[in-house]
Amino acid sequence: MAYSAPQSEFQFLMTSIVPLDLVAQTARFADATQATAQAMLSEAARLSTEVIAPLQRAGDMHPAVLENGVVRTSPGFAEGYRALADWGWNAIAADPEHGGMGLPMMLTTAVNDMLAGACLSLQLAPLMTQGQIEALETYASDEIKALYLPKLISGEWTGTMNLTEPQAGSDVGALRTKADLLEDGSYVISGQKIYISWGDHDMAENVCHLVLARTPGAPDGTKGISLFLVPKFLPKEDGTPGARNDLRPVSLEHKMGLHGSPTAVMEYSGAKGWLVGDPLGGMKAMFTMMNNARLGVGVQGIGVAEAATQAALDYAQTRVQGGKSPILGHADVRRMLAEMRADTFAARAIALACAQAIDMAQATGDSNWKARAALLTPIAKSFGTETGIRAAELGVQVHGGMGFVEETGVAQFSRDVRVTAIYEGTNGIQAMDLVGRKMLDGGEAMTSLIDEIEAHAEAVHGTLNEVSEPVWQASETLREAMETLAHLPMADRFGAAVPFLMGFARVLGAHYHLRAIANEGVESARGRLGRFYIERLLPQHVSYFAQVSLGSDVLDTLSAADLATQ
Amino acid sequence: MAYSAPQSEFQFLMTSIVPLDLVAQTARFADATQATAQAMLSEAARLSTEVIAPLQRAGDMHPAVLENGVVRTSPGFAEGYRALADWGWNAIAADPEHGGMGLPMMLTTAVNDMLAGACLSLQLAPLMTQGQIEALETYASDEIKALYLPKLISGEWTGTMNLTEPQAGSDVGALRTKADLLEDGSYVISGQKIYISWGDHDMAENVCHLVLARTPGAPDGTKGISLFLVPKFLPKEDGTPGARNDLRPVSLEHKMGLHGSPTAVMEYSGAKGWLVGDPLGGMKAMFTMMNNARLGVGVQGIGVAEAATQAALDYAQTRVQGGKSPILGHADVRRMLAEMRADTFAARAIALACAQAIDMAQATGDSNWKARAALLTPIAKSFGTETGIRAAELGVQVHGGMGFVEETGVAQFSRDVRVTAIYEGTNGIQAMDLVGRKMLDGGEAMTSLIDEIEAHAEAVHGTLNEVSEPVWQASETLREAMETLAHLPMADRFGAAVPFLMGFARVLGAHYHLRAIANEGVESARGRLGRFYIERLLPQHVSYFAQVSLGSDVLDTLSAADLATQ
Repeated sequence: MAYSAPQSEFQFLMTSIVPLDLVAQTARFADATQATAQAMLSEAARLSTEVIAPLQRAGDMHPAVLENGVVRTSPGFAEGYRALADWGWNAIAADPEHGGMGLPMMLTTAVNDMLAGACLSLQLAPLMTQGQIEALETYASDEIKALYLPKLISGEWTGTMNLTEPQAGSDVGALRTKADLLEDGSYVISGQKIYISWGDHDMAENVCHLVLARTPGAPDGTKGISLFLVPKFLPKEDGTPGARNDLRPVSLEHKMGLHGSPTAVMEYSGAKGWLVGDPLGGMKAMFTMMNNARLGVGVQGIGVAEAATQAALDYAQTRVQGGKSPILGHADVRRMLAEMRADTFAARAIALACAQAIDMAQATGDSNWKARAALLTPIAKSFGTETGIRAAELGVQVHGGMGFVEETGVAQFSRDVRVTAIYEGTNGIQAMDLVGRKMLDGGEAMTSLIDEIEAHAEAVHGTLNEVSEPVWQASETLREAMETLAHLPMADRFGAAVPFLMGFARVLGAHYHLRAIANEGVESARGRLGRFYIERLLPQHVSYFAQVSLGSDVLDTLSAADLATQ
Repeated sequence: MAYSAPQSEFQFLMTSIVPLDLVAQTARFADATQATAQAMLSEAARLSTEVIAPLQRAGDMHPAVLENGVVRTSPGFAEGYRALADWGWNAIAADPEHGGMGLPMMLTTAVNDMLAGACLSLQLAPLMTQGQIEALETYASDEIKALYLPKLISGEWTGTMNLTEPQAGSDVGALRTKADLLEDGSYVISGQKIYISWGDHDMAENVCHLVLARTPGAPDGTKGISLFLVPKFLPKEDGTPGARNDLRPVSLEHKMGLHGSPTAVMEYSGAKGWLVGDPLGGMKAMFTMMNNARLGVGVQGIGVAEAATQAALDYAQTRVQGGKSPILGHADVRRMLAEMRADTFAARAIALACAQAIDMAQATGDSNWKARAALLTPIAKSFGTETGIRAAELGVQVHGGMGFVEETGVAQFSRDVRVTAIYEGTNGIQAMDLVGRKMLDGGEAMTSLIDEIEAHAEAVHGTLNEVSEPVWQASETLREAMETLAHLPMADRFGAAVPFLMGFARVLGAHYHLRAIANEGVESARGRLGRFYIERLLPQHVSYFAQVSLGSDVLDTLSAADLATQ
């Protein structure tokens, strides 16, 4: 059951389906040639397969522990992380000015996918750091940038995000952590934060926390929040870690999965911190940080889906029942594997398209690309993570009784990936974002994407009619659902938000499969897989979109008493 | 998050939706009046809620362990089991001749549901015993019956099923365990069995194993298998446990969930056993034993769905975000809870209908009832367990980050219930059974059920048109799908087996919801829930049945290489 990073799949996707060339044609990303990409992917695949994947089970069996106030990580994690950072995989998109490679998000996405499939727990550490680097690049003072970015980019230090408090989960505006200004311009931070991934550990020499907090006299709710950088060790002027700051992990969560990733309750007892971005601009900075992290979490789901699919296919090919043929001979086993593989392809193409839009927006400043990136982010996050959860579950099912036994390693995929539908904004929140903020343009960004889907389907009509016609029809149904939503008051959209998002993803996934069919031909591996998706999975859009015209109506009639046991 | 057994829900179901009266009108079950049922359910609910439910977390946190050759169970399990057995809940359907109450399977189903929702790990022990009692009642000699049944029925002894071997999972015919005849008519059993639920423990004074094994010279495959009763302690003539038999648990599985239920590898090293049923009649006896166990496993899923729904509703009502209203105010949270509740109702009604058919078949010998029971069993098993898995997953999602943390207890529902889709025949095997063996009558039993669904929908047309029409239409689509399948060669049906089963369950669930609406009115709690199901969940049948006309075609074109990472 050795994981092998999907290098050639990315090669294909970036060449033929979501072209990297478009990005490489901009001045900003002129270095990201196919040759560079190929070399990068090859190295990242090697590291993921050979160095990181062997750590996966150790993270589960020997969880990170909090001892004497510090977190000790799982066996091998520190070495694995070091190898990862030494090769520069920690933050390849970061600004070259501070030691980064300045490569596009498309390549980051591919590398994150490979690493997540190898060992999700460990990969979460650099993912958190990537978000912090981006927030600092955008909002921090030059002084902070100069002091922190080189260390974060090299991976000598890691980063965290501190948003949640016990009384404030998805509702960030309810947070209470305080920040008081000192005479030297720094702040004193006091409060408790929960669910801090990689909040403390022994893999790097410093841990830097981005903490949302409230200054004295700040307005209630989200408008009164500012963002602060609060390091575990206060950097000396030469950039090396100095005095211990007054913050600490007070406990680690006992979680369903992701045992190798320490999830800490962090206590700030008058810790020294520095403002990042404008005063009261915390939510804006947080959204910058979270937006790409959302894509990153969607990619985590896809990486796990890949690993689960590989493991299940391996088992189905080698597990022989009663001296007869392997269980892959059973149509239902093939059905499960095909769903896993087809959804992984669809989710990966969507994530890459989101990354491409982020890159194009950054390189060109074009508002259409910005809108495309904003539109695709909640879809990439939700569909990527749902695909991870579903593929892991099907992978357990393919294994039968062996799947329920931990030694096989496939139950771990299911337990680990479960949180991806929850953190960085639950998938319900993503869907509300999609039908809310992402439709404030009256559906313009969506219409543009739907037009592209239909134009492509029309362009390949003829020889591919059998597969292009269902994609075109489904896209029309998506358009109608979108128009129905656009005419509903905001509050009435939310009851259909998740079904709409899932239906949208189904159609979008079909579009990329159709591109693959058009590219490789119906009688190719990708052609057959695409046909499976279009014939078997795309029809789900009907039941998703059927819920859109209902809006919240039927839900609004259901009281708590109705939902209780009668 | 205290679990409360759904007594009034069963009362409603057995009065108005799947009437117990039909069963009580037979001579065999004349004692099963509504008054008796009410008294029984009330007591079972009390035991489940007050005595068994408090054991749920202990089973997870302190798994059963194998020490010095014997299994020590989780804290409190022995006392909980004793209370359960003392009240007679172990086997209320068993024959009064040996101490049972002779009550219908409908009541067993209700009691099992309540106990499973309270503590799935513990409830699995009596469920295994129930299967053994039924097999012995049907196939064992009078001597064995007299010696074993009173002990199993009283719960002083428990039973297990020993089918699986390392090389023989779903393909039972590949098993190698040997049984050699001795002069006294008993047998010597040698071999290794895996995945033996409650294979050993300290809750009862004896553990009795029903073991599938092969006699010398027996034909290959399933035709060469016989069934043997092999107790841990050989009973003395007075019925008390005597000499230790030569069998032992050699290891326990480290599982994803269900930690309180010891899953043993059992070693038989020349253990003494007795034939049950005809020589070479092992498969037939096994199917008797497994058939009701399949319903029982479906009911396990439903019990967990109930518990997960209660916990999630409780959280959604009490979790306040930012000093505002509870999260139940969010339409998407209500959507998740409504799906959990509506599917639990549907799955429960289907399970009860299956139990009713089993009871009627037993009481009347009518072949139509037998066919109905046979038809509903794979649907009840698969849909009940899928509902449990889905509800547990949604329950985690409703809890957000808290759901991923084990202390909340809802992650345990998800981990525990996962195996129910696998054991007693995977859900894929259930679906193959449905489109295979259960359609050997050319679809007659299915047609009869579809006719009933449509007749009811027609009967309530008029005032209920808005909800009855979609049910009627969906039923017609089911009929068409069934006819399409019936005309396909057997081998071509299997690629659509699972989608067909799930679509069938969706339609059947809608039928029971429509009955509830008709009974209680559209403006009742059950009326609103039924409308939710019919509007939001029933449309899924379209995408399920869309796959039926494809058969295995698209799957047959997919090779192992196609399914690998490209």
